[in-house]
Amino acid sequence: MRLDETAKGVYVIAPTPFHEDGRIDEASTDRMTDFFLEAGCEGMTILGVMGEAPKLDQAESLEISRRIIKRAGDARIIVGVSAPGFAAMRALARGSMEAGAAGVMIAPPSTLRTDDQIVTYYAQAVAAIGDDVPFVLQDYPLLFQVQMTPGVIRRIVQENPSCVMLKHEDWPGLEKISTLRGYTAEGSMRPISILCGNGGLFLDFEMERGADGAMTGYCFPDMLADVVRLSAQGRREAAHDLFDAHLPLIRYEQQPGVGLAVRKYVLKRRGVLTSDAQRKPGGTLGAAARLEVDYLLARLACSDPRAGKLV
Amino acid sequence: MRLDETAKGVYVIAPTPFHEDGRIDEASTDRMTDFFLEAGCEGMTILGVMGEAPKLDQAESLEISRRIIKRAGDARIIVGVSAPGFAAMRALARGSMEAGAAGVMIAPPSTLRTDDQIVTYYAQAVAAIGDDVPFVLQDYPLLFQVQMTPGVIRRIVQENPSCVMLKHEDWPGLEKISTLRGYTAEGSMRPISILCGNGGLFLDFEMERGADGAMTGYCFPDMLADVVRLSAQGRREAAHDLFDAHLPLIRYEQQPGVGLAVRKYVLKRRGVLTSDAQRKPGGTLGAAARLEVDYLLARLACSDPRAGKLV
Amino acid sequence: MRLDETAKGVYVIAPTPFHEDGRIDEASTDRMTDFFLEAGCEGMTILGVMGEAPKLDQAESLEISRRIIKRAGDARIIVGVSAPGFAAMRALARGSMEAGAAGVMIAPPSTLRTDDQIVTYYAQAVAAIGDDVPFVLQDYPLLFQVQMTPGVIRRIVQENPSCVMLKHEDWPGLEKISTLRGYTAEGSMRPISILCGNGGLFLDFEMERGADGAMTGYCFPDMLADVVRLSAQGRREAAHDLFDAHLPLIRYEQQPGVGLAVRKYVLKRRGVLTSDAQRKPGGTLGAAARLEVDYLLARLACSDPRAGKLV
Amino acid sequence: MRLDETAKGVYVIAPTPFHEDGRIDEASTDRMTDFFLEAGCEGMTILGVMGEAPKLDQAESLEISRRIIKRAGDARIIVGVSAPGFAAMRALARGSMEAGAAGVMIAPPSTLRTDDQIVTYYAQAVAAIGDDVPFVLQDYPLLFQVQMTPGVIRRIVQENPSCVMLKHEDWPGLEKISTLRGYTAEGSMRPISILCGNGGLFLDFEMERGADGAMTGYCFPDMLADVVRLSAQGRREAAHDLFDAHLPLIRYEQQPGVGLAVRKYVLKRRGVLTSDAQRKPGGTLGAAARLEVDYLLARLACSDPRAGKLV
Repeated sequence: MRLDETAKGVYVIAPTPFHEDGRIDEASTDRMTDFFLEAGCEGMTILGVMGEAPKLDQAESLEISRRIIKRAGDARIIVGVSAPGFAAMRALARGSMEAGAAGVMIAPPSTLRTDDQIVTYYAQAVAAIGDDVPFVLQDYPLLFQVQMTPGVIRRIVQENPSCVMLKHEDWPGLEKISTLRGYTAEGSMRPISILCGNGGLFLDFEMERGADGAMTGYCFPDMLADVVRLSAQGRREAAHDLFDAHLPLIRYEQQPGVGLAVRKYVLKRRGVLTSDAQRKPGGTLGAAARLEVDYLLARLACSDPRAGKLV
Repeated sequence: MRLDETAKGVYVIAPTPFHEDGRIDEASTDRMTDFFLEAGCEGMTILGVMGEAPKLDQAESLEISRRIIKRAGDARIIVGVSAPGFAAMRALARGSMEAGAAGVMIAPPSTLRTDDQIVTYYAQAVAAIGDDVPFVLQDYPLLFQVQMTPGVIRRIVQENPSCVMLKHEDWPGLEKISTLRGYTAEGSMRPISILCGNGGLFLDFEMERGADGAMTGYCFPDMLADVVRLSAQGRREAAHDLFDAHLPLIRYEQQPGVGLAVRKYVLKRRGVLTSDAQRKPGGTLGAAARLEVDYLLARLACSDPRAGKLV
Repeated sequence: MRLDETAKGVYVIAPTPFHEDGRIDEASTDRMTDFFLEAGCEGMTILGVMGEAPKLDQAESLEISRRIIKRAGDARIIVGVSAPGFAAMRALARGSMEAGAAGVMIAPPSTLRTDDQIVTYYAQAVAAIGDDVPFVLQDYPLLFQVQMTPGVIRRIVQENPSCVMLKHEDWPGLEKISTLRGYTAEGSMRPISILCGNGGLFLDFEMERGADGAMTGYCFPDMLADVVRLSAQGRREAAHDLFDAHLPLIRYEQQPGVGLAVRKYVLKRRGVLTSDAQRKPGGTLGAAARLEVDYLLARLACSDPRAGKLV
Repeated sequence: MRLDETAKGVYVIAPTPFHEDGRIDEASTDRMTDFFLEAGCEGMTILGVMGEAPKLDQAESLEISRRIIKRAGDARIIVGVSAPGFAAMRALARGSMEAGAAGVMIAPPSTLRTDDQIVTYYAQAVAAIGDDVPFVLQDYPLLFQVQMTPGVIRRIVQENPSCVMLKHEDWPGLEKISTLRGYTAEGSMRPISILCGNGGLFLDFEMERGADGAMTGYCFPDMLADVVRLSAQGRREAAHDLFDAHLPLIRYEQQPGVGLAVRKYVLKRRGVLTSDAQRKPGGTLGAAARLEVDYLLARLACSDPRAGKLV
C-alpha cells in the first residue's frame, strides 16, 4: 500500500543484519521483519543511516529491499534511497517501488546550505525518481549538517505533492512540530504525516506536540508502539511512566557511533538477530559498555517485563 | 586556592544573571553564588558558553569574575577565557587570576582540524596566559567541531604542566574516559582531574568510568553533587535511582538552543534568579515548553522533594 | 565623511603593522596610511581579517582606529567591528564613529546557516550598533562558511537602510554581481556600492559586471586603483593588460594562510612597513617562498616599473 | 601498465562527455581520449569529481572505464573509485583493474577529522580494494574538508605500499611539496609520485618545488604538458612565460561550480566534445560568462596559437 499523509504509528528504522564475516544474514532479516511487525509496528524503514545503507552496493540494496517487502506482506516498507547522485537514487527508488515498497526516504546531501539550494535539491530528486513515488523528507541537521526551517519544509511540501511524510529529527524540534502543525491549521501547508526520529529521545513530548508516531530503531520498538498508542489515547501519565522507564537505555542507545552497536546487541539478546556484527567499518561495544547495557536492561526489567526475557 | 589535578565534585557551570533589559543582575549573581555553594558544589565555572560569555564585553567579564570570586570565599572559581585572539584571552586570564580565580578554561577555536593544530593552539594559549595559570581543557566536539583524540589530549597534558583538568564533553565519551584513565594507569600520562559536561546526560556512567565529578549547569546541581557522592561511595543503585528520576528533565534541558532557557526558568522557579532573561540574542521558552517543564517538575517532585519547593 | 551607496574606487584592506615583538608599529601605521592614500585609494578598511583584528584587544582596536582616522584626514575609513557578541561590536562601532570613521564592516558568524538566521543576525547587529551607523555587509563564504544568496542580500539591504555597501567576495561571484545589479535595475533593491575582495583575483571582470571598485589588500593597491579607473573609463584592453601583468603575483598572494605574509613582505620591500612581522600566531614566509615572491616581482618589473622600486 | 611511484608528466582529469539529454556521449569520449593522449598527456584520470562521477550509476562507471581504458592502449588510466561505502568502492576498483586500469584514486570522506581517522580510513580502503591495486591519495581539503598534514600523508604512504602517488591539491600547498620531498630525502618516507591539481593554478612553482607533473583538467592540457616539460628541462623563464599567458583563463576556469562548464565549453570550441552538457544537476555558463571566456581565448591567441584554432 502506498504511503500517504495519513500514516500513523511506528515505522521502525530497521538495521541490516549481517553475519560475522560481513555477508547479509537473511534468516535474521526474516526473523527481524516478523518481530517488528508483531511488536506493533505499522511499517518499517529500511536502508537508512542506521541500516548501514552506504555499505551495501546497488545490487545488495535492491535485493534486501525485495526480501523485506515480500516478507512484510501488507505492512508498509519505506526504502532509504539517498545517494550521491540521482542516477543511483532513481535506480533504487524505481526498483523498490516495483517490488512493492510503500515509498522512499531522501536525506539532503551535506553540501546544501541556502534555503533555495535545499528546495531545489528536492525538486531535482523528485524529477529523478518520478513524481509518482511517495517520499519521506528527512530533516536531521545534527547528522547531515543541513538546516531546514519550517518555511523551507513548507515550500518542499507545497511544491512536491509526492512529499507525504516528514522524518522529524531536528534537535531541538518540539517547536518545529508545533509550527508545522500550525501551518496546516492555518491552511498554508497541506497535511503531512510527521514521524519522529532522534532515537526516540523526545517521543513523549513529540506526540503531545502533534506528531503521528515514531520512525526510529530503538531496541524496544514494542515500547515505542505502546507510547504512541497511550499518547494518542490521551493517557498521558501512563505514556510518560512507560517512556521514563526506558529513558536511561534510550539515552544510552542514542550515542552517535555507539548507538547501532547497542541496538544490535539488545536485538541479539532479545533473540531477533543471530549476530550483532556490523559490516566494516563499524562500531563495536567494548566490554565495559556491554556490562553497562546489561545493567540498564536489568534495571529496566523491574518495570517492563519485556526487558527480562533475554537470551 | 589554585586548581590542581586533585579536584573532585561539582564545579557548576554558572549562568550569568541578567535583568529583563539586559543589564547584569548583581543581586541574583550573589544569591546564585550562595545557592550553588550551599547546594554542595566544590566550585563554580563562570563565563562559559552557557554563561553567555561572548555577549559580555571585556570590562563586564572581568567585573563579574571579581564579584563572584569575592563572594565565593574559599570555593574555587574557574573563569572561561576563550577568545578569538590571545590578547583578549591573556587580559581576562591575568585579571581573573589576580582577582583570586582558581584557574581558567580554554575551548578550542572551531577552525582547528589536525592533531598538530590542536596541540599547537594550546601551546600558544599557555604562552599567552602564562604557564603559571592552571587551565581546564574543554573537549566539546559537538559544539566546537574540534575532535581531540585521547592521544591529542595526552600530548597537551604532557607538554603543558599547567593543564590540570579536562572538561569532558565528547559525545559519546565513556570510552574516552576509560582510555585516559588507562594512560595514567600505565604511566604514559600524568593524572588530571576529569569533570564531565554534556548537561549531565551520562553522569551516572561517567563516574563509574573514572570521572572525578561534574562540570555542568543542570538546574539541580544539588542532585549532581548527590550522584557524585553516592557514586564515589560505591552506592550504585542509589546513584542510578536518583539520577534516573532526574533524567527526563536532564534530557529536556540538554536541548541545544533551548537548554539555557530551561535552566534559567527552573533556577527562577527555585528562587535563585529574579529573572530568566538572556541577553540578546537569546533563546526563550514558549508557552508550550514552559508547561512541559512544569509537568516534568511536578513528576519529579514525587521522588525528589527539592523539585516540589518552587516559587 | 559618512559612507554611502555612491562609494567608488579602492578601499584598501589595511594590514596592521607590528614590531617584531608584537607591539603595534605606529610609525609604519602612519607611513602606510599616507602611502595608501597617495596610491590612489579612496579610503581604507581597517581591522578586517587580514588586519589581524581578532589578535587585538578592545583598547588596541579603538586606539589604532583613532590613529588612522586622524591621519587619513578627509579619506574615508571603514572599521571592521565583527565580534563574537554584540556588546563588543557596539563598543567598537560607536567608538570608531565618534572618532570619525565613515562606517563599519560586519562579517557573519560562521554558525549561521538558514536564510532567516542570516537576515535576523544583521537586524540584531544594526539594533546593537545603532541604525545611524553606515555598514558594509561582508559576503565571504569561503572563509566564514556562510552562504548568502542574492535574495538574502536584498532582504538585508531592503530591511536595513544603514546597509550601504557590499564587500563582495563570494567565489565564484561574477553572476552574483550581475544578479544584484539586475535587482536594482528592475527596482526591487535600492542601489548599494559593491566593492570586491578575494585578493583582487577577479577584479578585471568584476568591474565589467558592475562593481564600483575594490576592497582588498593586494600589495600593489596603486595597480588596483589604475585597473578600476581604466575599467570605469571603458579602456578594456589596457585594464586587462595591467591586470594580467600582476596576476601571477595576485594569485600567489591569494593563498590562504600565506597571503598576509606575502603582502607584508612586499609592502616592506616597497618601503611601507618597517617589519613584515605578524602578531602570534601568524604565518611566515619560508626561504623558498621569499625567493618565489622576489622572482615574481622581478618578472613584474619588466612591465610595471613600480615593481622595480624596492628596498 | 601498472601505476607506480615513477609516474611523471600530465595525467589529465577527464570530464565525462554527455549528450544534451544526459546520456553518455561515446563518440566524444573516444575523440577526447585520442585528443588528450596526442596533447602529450602520459595518462588520464577518469571518474573524479570533475568527471561527474557521483552522477553515474555503478554500471555506467564501469562501462565508461572499460571504454576509455581500451581506447587509450598503452597509456595509463587511473579510475576514481571514491564511494560512500567500501562495497561499491571495491566493485569499481576490481572491475577497473580487470579491464586494464593502471590504478585507482581515493578521496577521503568529508566526515574524517582526526589524524588517526584519516590513516584508518585508508587502511580500510586498501583492505577493501586489495593491496595489489596501486592507488592515488587525493589531498584536496578545500573540497573534501579533510586536512592531512605531511605527517599523516607519510603514515599512509609508509603503512600502505600500494599508495604510489599523491594528487596534491592542498591550498596553499607549495610548502607541503617541499616537506614531503624532504621526508624522502632524509629517508623517512619512500618516494612517491606527486602530481598537482587545483586547476593548475600553481603548477609553475609546484614543479620547481619537486612535483612530478600535473593531474588536472585545464582545457589546454597541451599547455600543461609543455610547462611540465620546460620546467623539468630547467627552462624556467620559458615555463613561466607560457604559464603566465594562460593564467587569466586558468584562474577563470578554477572557479568552483563554474569551472567544469568553462572547461567543457572550451573543449567543445576546441573540437573535442560535441556538447558541453553536464548531467543534471549541473552548472551552466551564462551569456556573460561565455563572452568572458571568448574574450580570454582571444587574448590568449595572441601568444599561444592553440587558442586561435577554435570551432
